[in-house]
Amino acid sequence: MTVLRIAQAQSPVYTDKEQINDFLLRISEQSAQKGAHLLALPEMFCCPYDIASFPDYAEEEGGPVWQACSRAARSFRIFLSAGTIPERDPSGHIYNTAYVFGQDGNQIAKHRKMHLFDINIEGGQSFRESAVLTSGDEITTFRTDFCTMGLAVCYDIRFPELFRLMALNGADIILVPASFNMTTGPMHWELLFRSQSVFNQVFIIGTAPARDENASYVSWGHSIITDPWGNILSQMDERVHLSVTEINLDECRKVREQIPVFRHRRTDVYTLITGDSPQKKC
Amino acid sequence: MTVLRIAQAQSPVYTDKEQINDFLLRISEQSAQKGAHLLALPEMFCCPYDIASFPDYAEEEGGPVWQACSRAARSFRIFLSAGTIPERDPSGHIYNTAYVFGQDGNQIAKHRKMHLFDINIEGGQSFRESAVLTSGDEITTFRTDFCTMGLAVCYDIRFPELFRLMALNGADIILVPASFNMTTGPMHWELLFRSQSVFNQVFIIGTAPARDENASYVSWGHSIITDPWGNILSQMDERVHLSVTEINLDECRKVREQIPVFRHRRTDVYTLITGDSPQKKC
Repeated sequence: MTVLRIAQAQSPVYTDKEQINDFLLRISEQSAQKGAHLLALPEMFCCPYDIASFPDYAEEEGGPVWQACSRAARSFRIFLSAGTIPERDPSGHIYNTAYVFGQDGNQIAKHRKMHLFDINIEGGQSFRESAVLTSGDEITTFRTDFCTMGLAVCYDIRFPELFRLMALNGADIILVPASFNMTTGPMHWELLFRSQSVFNQVFIIGTAPARDENASYVSWGHSIITDPWGNILSQMDERVHLSVTEINLDECRKVREQIPVFRHRRTDVYTLITGDSPQKKC
Repeated sequence: MTVLRIAQAQSPVYTDKEQINDFLLRISEQSAQKGAHLLALPEMFCCPYDIASFPDYAEEEGGPVWQACSRAARSFRIFLSAGTIPERDPSGHIYNTAYVFGQDGNQIAKHRKMHLFDINIEGGQSFRESAVLTSGDEITTFRTDFCTMGLAVCYDIRFPELFRLMALNGADIILVPASFNMTTGPMHWELLFRSQSVFNQVFIIGTAPARDENASYVSWGHSIITDPWGNILSQMDERVHLSVTEINLDECRKVREQIPVFRHRRTDVYTLITGDSPQKKC
């Protein structure tokens, strides 16, 4: 299969467990009805994006929100990129974690945000995730019936090395739950998605919460899908919306034949290695 | 000094040695009169951009065009990023080579295009540099009185690894003589310059030949300067033009403080190495 229909839910942030469950069932049903194969949710769709809230809302893997996600995926036979959920591990560390569930409700991938969002822009946005969150240290790619996919979270997209390594691991699609803000959104949102698509010749699915002007952190919204040529296939405004976009995976093969950057990489001059040892060279 | 004035000459392609000498003296004088510290010229400003011409126009380092560049820089006490010149080495290999001359006319840097431009876009541009050119294998950065600069040529800009390594070597400005075409120009020119600036928090100076509709390879023009925030400080249209743009190098420091991606890089998870051995890790 080369055509894939991707639903993106640019949702409000839900904080009530009952509401979250209802939302997940409703949005999964609507997406399935629209013929979507995969549904993507925003970063922290179930927790206010502020450092005070992360510890309050954090749950261990398999907790109530995780269960609701699994149930929704299984009930409507849909792949679910379940945005991110604050995850508490047994030792008490908290992560900004993206989960993906298969059509049978099983967890098929997990990515803990690797680059924590600590910025302080003069006259603009400040934030310090590292005050309460711990960073993940795994590069995440996984096989599906459609293609290999990669998984990253928001600020991770500013790092060429991570996206390059996911592409070298075979990703044709990279899922990015994200929440840019009113400073970095207009400045860099489109640019980062389009350029990472072009450099790595992949589709990128960026899914953000709808804007809430009263939140302490105001989301830029603008959920986006970029193709391997750098085209924007779909982009929302700031409001609540469910979109379905059809993508043709053949475009990855086409662009890689026509502008063969992966054949042209000079691995005799530079090499990306993972981990502390040079075991794996890309 | 933190403010630097950069002249860019979006010139026609000159093929007559006498004309080339006159052009270099005239454009250097005009740039100096406008208060420019550095003058940037286009890729292959002295040779038609086609594979049949490269062997005909190639000269060894220190040849007539090289001499004219050195003389122009010395005569008007200007740094000269002398676009690119087809260079023949003693063993007969031909390179697409960027030279930079200091105010005393001495060559201070040299970059042989590292990624050869072999593309074949359906319904668009085809080209195969590798049919006659050899690729360079050095990453080029160099110190000046202003800052450390990097040097790359055109298609090199599609490779995140190379630009990252120049930034890690300390570059605040990257000079890129280039010539995109009527397919890749509208599609990717701005995107690649802006995004490499944002990822690496550097100024990038892209200088292209003016458009000649009758040439076998039609240049997109649009010589551009992007700043470390991804702003376009200046961009031309397709016509012959000499522009002077003031840049403030303090912006590099500011963006690196406010969005500190270099501190956030996860070198415990991924590392760029140069050469065949893991001697140098970045």
